[in-house]
Amino acid sequence: MTAQPSSSSPSSPQTPSALSSTEALSLFTLAAACVAVLANTFQGDGEPLIASLALSGLAFAATFSMIRWLGPAFVRAGLKGVDMSKATRRELPECMGAVAAVVYLFVVIVFVPFPFYKDIVAATSGGGNRDVVVRVEEAQQGRFLHRFPHGKLASYLSAIISLQSIAILGIGDDLFDIRWRHKFFIPAFASIPLLVVYFVDFGVTSIVIPVPLQPYLGELFDLGALYYVYMAGVAIFSPNSINILAGINGIEVTQSIVIASLLAFNDCLYLLTPYPHPATDSHLFSLYFLLPFLGVSLALLGHNWYPARVFVGDTYCYFAGMVFVVVSILGHFSKTLVLLLIPQIANFVYSTPQLFGLVPCPRHRLPRFNARTGALEPSVTPWGEHRQPRPPVAWALRLLGKVGLLRVTLDGEGRFVETSNFTILNLWLVWRGPLREDRLAKEITAMQVVVGLFGLFVRHRLALLIFKEDNWGL
Amino acid sequence: MTAQPSSSSPSSPQTPSALSSTEALSLFTLAAACVAVLANTFQGDGEPLIASLALSGLAFAATFSMIRWLGPAFVRAGLKGVDMSKATRRELPECMGAVAAVVYLFVVIVFVPFPFYKDIVAATSGGGNRDVVVRVEEAQQGRFLHRFPHGKLASYLSAIISLQSIAILGIGDDLFDIRWRHKFFIPAFASIPLLVVYFVDFGVTSIVIPVPLQPYLGELFDLGALYYVYMAGVAIFSPNSINILAGINGIEVTQSIVIASLLAFNDCLYLLTPYPHPATDSHLFSLYFLLPFLGVSLALLGHNWYPARVFVGDTYCYFAGMVFVVVSILGHFSKTLVLLLIPQIANFVYSTPQLFGLVPCPRHRLPRFNARTGALEPSVTPWGEHRQPRPPVAWALRLLGKVGLLRVTLDGEGRFVETSNFTILNLWLVWRGPLREDRLAKEITAMQVVVGLFGLFVRHRLALLIFKEDNWGL
Repeated sequence: MTAQPSSSSPSSPQTPSALSSTEALSLFTLAAACVAVLANTFQGDGEPLIASLALSGLAFAATFSMIRWLGPAFVRAGLKGVDMSKATRRELPECMGAVAAVVYLFVVIVFVPFPFYKDIVAATSGGGNRDVVVRVEEAQQGRFLHRFPHGKLASYLSAIISLQSIAILGIGDDLFDIRWRHKFFIPAFASIPLLVVYFVDFGVTSIVIPVPLQPYLGELFDLGALYYVYMAGVAIFSPNSINILAGINGIEVTQSIVIASLLAFNDCLYLLTPYPHPATDSHLFSLYFLLPFLGVSLALLGHNWYPARVFVGDTYCYFAGMVFVVVSILGHFSKTLVLLLIPQIANFVYSTPQLFGLVPCPRHRLPRFNARTGALEPSVTPWGEHRQPRPPVAWALRLLGKVGLLRVTLDGEGRFVETSNFTILNLWLVWRGPLREDRLAKEITAMQVVVGLFGLFVRHRLALLIFKEDNWGL
Repeated sequence: MTAQPSSSSPSSPQTPSALSSTEALSLFTLAAACVAVLANTFQGDGEPLIASLALSGLAFAATFSMIRWLGPAFVRAGLKGVDMSKATRRELPECMGAVAAVVYLFVVIVFVPFPFYKDIVAATSGGGNRDVVVRVEEAQQGRFLHRFPHGKLASYLSAIISLQSIAILGIGDDLFDIRWRHKFFIPAFASIPLLVVYFVDFGVTSIVIPVPLQPYLGELFDLGALYYVYMAGVAIFSPNSINILAGINGIEVTQSIVIASLLAFNDCLYLLTPYPHPATDSHLFSLYFLLPFLGVSLALLGHNWYPARVFVGDTYCYFAGMVFVVVSILGHFSKTLVLLLIPQIANFVYSTPQLFGLVPCPRHRLPRFNARTGALEPSVTPWGEHRQPRPPVAWALRLLGKVGLLRVTLDGEGRFVETSNFTILNLWLVWRGPLREDRLAKEITAMQVVVGLFGLFVRHRLALLIFKEDNWGL
């Protein structure tokens, strides 16, 4: 649900399509440093985490440059939109998240050999003075097969397939402007590879039961097929929830960066334990996917932050949401992801009256730009004299208005004139008055950081009240 | 290199966007039959080959319907082109290969559990009365891990990743009309996942040496890194060679169908041996990828055959070429693929004078449509009085003209007026005079079938003269 539709009658695009010399020099320096670090990992033990960091730096440089260079080509191809919250309505390249996604996919594909480097060296050099246990079996064909963590590889590859699927479907959505009812299922299709490989390869469908319920249900409870329904639910919700918290410059990217950073922070907690934790591998796996994502997202933010020179498109929102899905499902911490999505969940729940048609839903619900003040105000749904809400809805709207969760304007006879639209961006504006677009983006992002950190605190401390042990240890 | 460029001044699109009732009924019957067969495989042993056939039928029905339904949406999104070889220049939806590719990818992803079904049943039911040997090891986490053909799974997934990559890059090419010099490398990028997983997972880089050379080089010769160069070369050549044998309705699809059918025929030879052949698994693997490809390609041909109602786009050509690359590299019969690509190789070699700039290369080299006769004639490169070929080139052109490999028109003073363009489509027209477009497509396709069958004969019979044994046995 992008807030900026295509239009054919705005001013001509002014977006520059070349890097400034300062930008070129900085990006070149960064890229050179990353290449040096990467080359160095070949010398040593091929430390995958260092390699992932270096590749993420390269991904940043590549994404930043390519978005700049490709802008005019995107506009020519019809991938363009108008920024509705600016005094001069400029036509900007749309769907630039596709560039970020393609760079990201390239990097995670090229990265494949790194986490498996030790096994390769051991297998090709005979494992001589390296302390890797290699069990060699002579195969039927007469060549040597080494014992290799294929399970991990298949998980990694299935994650890439899901991410490529969502990129293809997201690009299709941006091109063809698929209807809301249909696009809702795009992430469901893209999660199929993930679930299929999970089914074939892993198949753990048990959940740990909270201590108070253990006398009745046992320590573990096998959800069976329901576990797949749960995973599909997370996979559908995460990308869509990021896609509907949109409408002001930068907000799609900043919310994704906050979630990715908090997930990465959570991963680091598992790497810093004094003892090797059974979940360390899962969280390394997660970092390998999150670090390049942060790289391309920061580069995208450089162009999409207020005042935006490009739009990210549905592609980016879906893609970001699916990155979180693959790391959390394959890393077995999908409950943690749900905690970090609290603002998105709140936005979705708050939106339901309009999404489900109890209150009329205009085509765009993004905050209203006041050209006189240059600030954003809550956008509203107008109610006509003969088009009033039904009694129970009217009662609920008045209640929401009283507790400060909605701006309600009534006429002298108590009839509804207008109500603010049901998104947390509008709600925030109801609370904090007119705000400039970048100020609103900063405040929402800050709110999300606070809520997310609290979520992680709950995850690691309060969970001990109802579960016997934390994954992180006591 | 599509021959049909976008233009903005043709007649409005007339392509129907709904299925006729006969079509709807036939497709529904086919789909219902396939679903029944598919459901039946769950009852029995989950025979993957039957499931693959049923899924391919479903892929045909889905592709045929979706191409019809989505035509107007593609035109609206700017994916359209003009058919230059028709009396009335109609604007047709372009890039419909993307629909075929997406359906195909969906099918091969959904198919993943089938080849592994026996292992799943054995692992989940304890393997009771089924004659599958399952070695169960208790893992650290306390859950049971079964012995599972992960190696096969990783190969399968890496093939899907390569195919998704080429789909994404192909769609990018169709959208942005990338320059010839750059698009040449698109398949190289898409083959990276395949090569990376081959490196990590398989790593066999030896080739069998022909008997006469064995005294000097030994029985096997390890090409090492060169083997990857060879594979990358095949991966770059195959998609590009299909992409440059284009320009008349249906030819991109028919050549792909011929190659896929011959590869599938070759696979079947390995399945029908009286004894279990060591390469049987590789060729089953190949069939699982080729059957759905035949399904979506036949559906595409239904719309793209003369007179075309849709164009396939570069996406389809790249995608088809990459399907052949993944099955032949992962199935270890890339030399067989090269034999089947002989017409494409001939077209490429014949094209080199224009591709490498010895002879001027116009934007389009497709055969010229003669509106008076309704037939195609060889298109030509005109030579100006002051723009004559250099002496060695002139000598070569005259020689080619003499041996019938080029139509050369000279003026009274022996200066070049025009020469036919260097594609085998034009050469065929030089030989066989003006032909109607569908007649030319049929003849080229028939030529390809004959050459391909001869290639397979060489592969299985004459190879025994220089190799000690055929893969297929003696």
